[in-house]
Amino acid sequence: MASSDHGPPSGTRDFLAPEVARRRWVFDQVRSVFERYGFVPLETPAMERLEVLTGKYGDEGDKLVFKILRRGVHEATGEADLALRYDLTVPLARVVARHLGQLGVPYKRYQMGPVWRADRPGRGRFREFHQCDIDVVGTSSAVADAEVILALVDALCALGLPEVSVELNSRNALRGLMQAYGVPRELEVSALIALDKLDKLGPAGVVAELLERGLSGDALDRLHSDLEAPDREARTAELLDRTEVGRQGRQEIERLRALVEPHLGRGRARLEVSPFLARGLDYYTGPIFELTAPGSRSSIGSGGRYDHLMGQFSGRDVPATGGSLGIERVLLLLGPDLGQEPTRPDVWVANVGGPAEDALALVVELRRGGLVAELSHEGGGLGRQLKQASARGAPLCVIDGPEERAAATVTVKDLASGAQEVVARAELVSHLRARCR
Amino acid sequence: MASSDHGPPSGTRDFLAPEVARRRWVFDQVRSVFERYGFVPLETPAMERLEVLTGKYGDEGDKLVFKILRRGVHEATGEADLALRYDLTVPLARVVARHLGQLGVPYKRYQMGPVWRADRPGRGRFREFHQCDIDVVGTSSAVADAEVILALVDALCALGLPEVSVELNSRNALRGLMQAYGVPRELEVSALIALDKLDKLGPAGVVAELLERGLSGDALDRLHSDLEAPDREARTAELLDRTEVGRQGRQEIERLRALVEPHLGRGRARLEVSPFLARGLDYYTGPIFELTAPGSRSSIGSGGRYDHLMGQFSGRDVPATGGSLGIERVLLLLGPDLGQEPTRPDVWVANVGGPAEDALALVVELRRGGLVAELSHEGGGLGRQLKQASARGAPLCVIDGPEERAAATVTVKDLASGAQEVVARAELVSHLRARCR
Repeated sequence: MASSDHGPPSGTRDFLAPEVARRRWVFDQVRSVFERYGFVPLETPAMERLEVLTGKYGDEGDKLVFKILRRGVHEATGEADLALRYDLTVPLARVVARHLGQLGVPYKRYQMGPVWRADRPGRGRFREFHQCDIDVVGTSSAVADAEVILALVDALCALGLPEVSVELNSRNALRGLMQAYGVPRELEVSALIALDKLDKLGPAGVVAELLERGLSGDALDRLHSDLEAPDREARTAELLDRTEVGRQGRQEIERLRALVEPHLGRGRARLEVSPFLARGLDYYTGPIFELTAPGSRSSIGSGGRYDHLMGQFSGRDVPATGGSLGIERVLLLLGPDLGQEPTRPDVWVANVGGPAEDALALVVELRRGGLVAELSHEGGGLGRQLKQASARGAPLCVIDGPEERAAATVTVKDLASGAQEVVARAELVSHLRARCR
Repeated sequence: MASSDHGPPSGTRDFLAPEVARRRWVFDQVRSVFERYGFVPLETPAMERLEVLTGKYGDEGDKLVFKILRRGVHEATGEADLALRYDLTVPLARVVARHLGQLGVPYKRYQMGPVWRADRPGRGRFREFHQCDIDVVGTSSAVADAEVILALVDALCALGLPEVSVELNSRNALRGLMQAYGVPRELEVSALIALDKLDKLGPAGVVAELLERGLSGDALDRLHSDLEAPDREARTAELLDRTEVGRQGRQEIERLRALVEPHLGRGRARLEVSPFLARGLDYYTGPIFELTAPGSRSSIGSGGRYDHLMGQFSGRDVPATGGSLGIERVLLLLGPDLGQEPTRPDVWVANVGGPAEDALALVVELRRGGLVAELSHEGGGLGRQLKQASARGAPLCVIDGPEERAAATVTVKDLASGAQEVVARAELVSHLRARCR
């Protein structure tokens, strides 16, 4: 799939029919699970006003936003006033600020669609990629957090990925941990950004980045040794109890674990507490999680609680929790033959020696009878038309030749076996409908 | 629907659940007709490289393209390198140049998705709007043009709009007409742009614009009188025969009319030749058409043949013809209650006095049994939970209270009639599945 002059922009893709069919099957499965969990659909525009997105994703995220140049006489300023959405969560927060009264609480919505990030393209990482999001807005209940995780796990299970791991942590636990290690308050956010890269960089890489970001001394040493310990959860558990915020985080984790874990058995999914899981985005405030599956080098889903994001739009906090499937990475894990095959004609009409009007009339009649029917636009001999029919995968061919026309019949040919049958013209639709199920 | 600080960008929309359901129904109907006609799906990115779009839509179109600012250190240049797609035809031409060998000929593809134009927003006119396109690439046959028109008419019929008018013309007929009126060659394109506004501006407005664009004298007078004549087709027919290109155009129109007209009867659709129909886009080369329906102030579909657009990418011409539904205008013509209602729970679980774990477990069991099940995240008294269930439109409520738990049963309450039934806990899923169809 060499990129050429005629390729799409870097990091984006064209999907031909078989891949569209495969992706559609995947989105249909996920949608069906989300709807069974009571989530209702929302769609928002690809573009948002620039100020809606700015300052929501941290410095690293802000740099990856695709900005849209002002138009008309303002184009020459070189300024942007709009941007492509970077995720589906900030648009949700805007919609909630606008419509909360009419939406009712809790508002459980799903949204599936493309988002755009000017990231460096790589395997499973694109500049245009789809997200499948669910969120519950308007409740602080841990049951809502649990529903989000279970719906995502069930969706992955429906796609044939039963061995999902849920890695669970809490932003409050993480803050407690940073305090216990003695990370200075002003370096906390910076430390989280470094920790978020643990699966990419490994412990040594994270420590190097922490050092670069200004962390040193005892705090760095202690963090370093726990990062490398195989029993991270046990070693950090005791540290959490030292601070109020750490205890709160531990309680959040335990509560959520108790709600989620009993329902993971069916699909051989499992849950583990991952004390250094950080999640890059700025807006998380409580439990956070990532989903991984065998064969994927990075997470295939993630989410968490974000109780203050809505307040940035509406001026008053509305508690919210949600999660998202990294569906492009999921697609890499799935087999090539999913979903129905791309449209294949039920029947091909071969018109021999008659006018094109008659061939088209026959095809239109079959289509209006509910059949996927095709014809050779340019007519030609029977052999050429049968070849086209086979190339497009039609199982049956209707031959409308001079003898057939004289007898008000057509010949129906099975293209696999070669068997032929003469059928009265007037009974053709019902004959074919019976043969094509 | 007052716009507020929290609204989406001008000319774009948020779709809440009922509208998403309605739109999904419409797109599903259209897709189903397109597939019955043998078109296969294609998806291309929202963004294209700027040079792919530039120069394809004429000066007026080029101004309406949303351009994307370069990123990183290049952002300060104020230059754009990417743009949002303006239609689905130019991306198709790019894909064909890239993949034609593998796609086979004719390549019949459909694409449904948003496009973006920085137009002045108005009723039925948006800056982000969906198009539903079909195109046949690789054949000059008029049967292909006919299939495009019939598929679009059948799709509109499937949506409940049976009284569609097909207005038909040909770019060649129009060129013949311009020559017969004595429009100077260098003003031909300019005259077409003015004529394209006939339904918006009326004859007087078009004449004023033609004058402004430099047309005058006899040519303008003759054009003016024919534009206002009620029998335009008859008056112009004779003019077409005066030039070679005019005769070619008339033959194209007659051929296509003969193929299409016999199949319009079923849906009370009709076809008329519209000698001043121009279509704004630069790339048309042969037959062009617009679809209108009672109640719509402007066309709800359009298309035509464009035999040279592919050549702009691949260096060699590939004949092509296609059309597009103005689905946003179609949506304005359709009733409010289309498609399935937005997700409504089959059943609500009211847990009284038990732990949230048990309520969640019951709901998860029902969902895994295929039911859309919901619960009150924050629990509370039975009255409060029944109220939530009714507000969300659940027809049934499962009551899991202390007495029920002691007897290993639950109470199933019909929320409309108030009737209650005690059901063994172990048989709940099958009981509910039977009641919910």
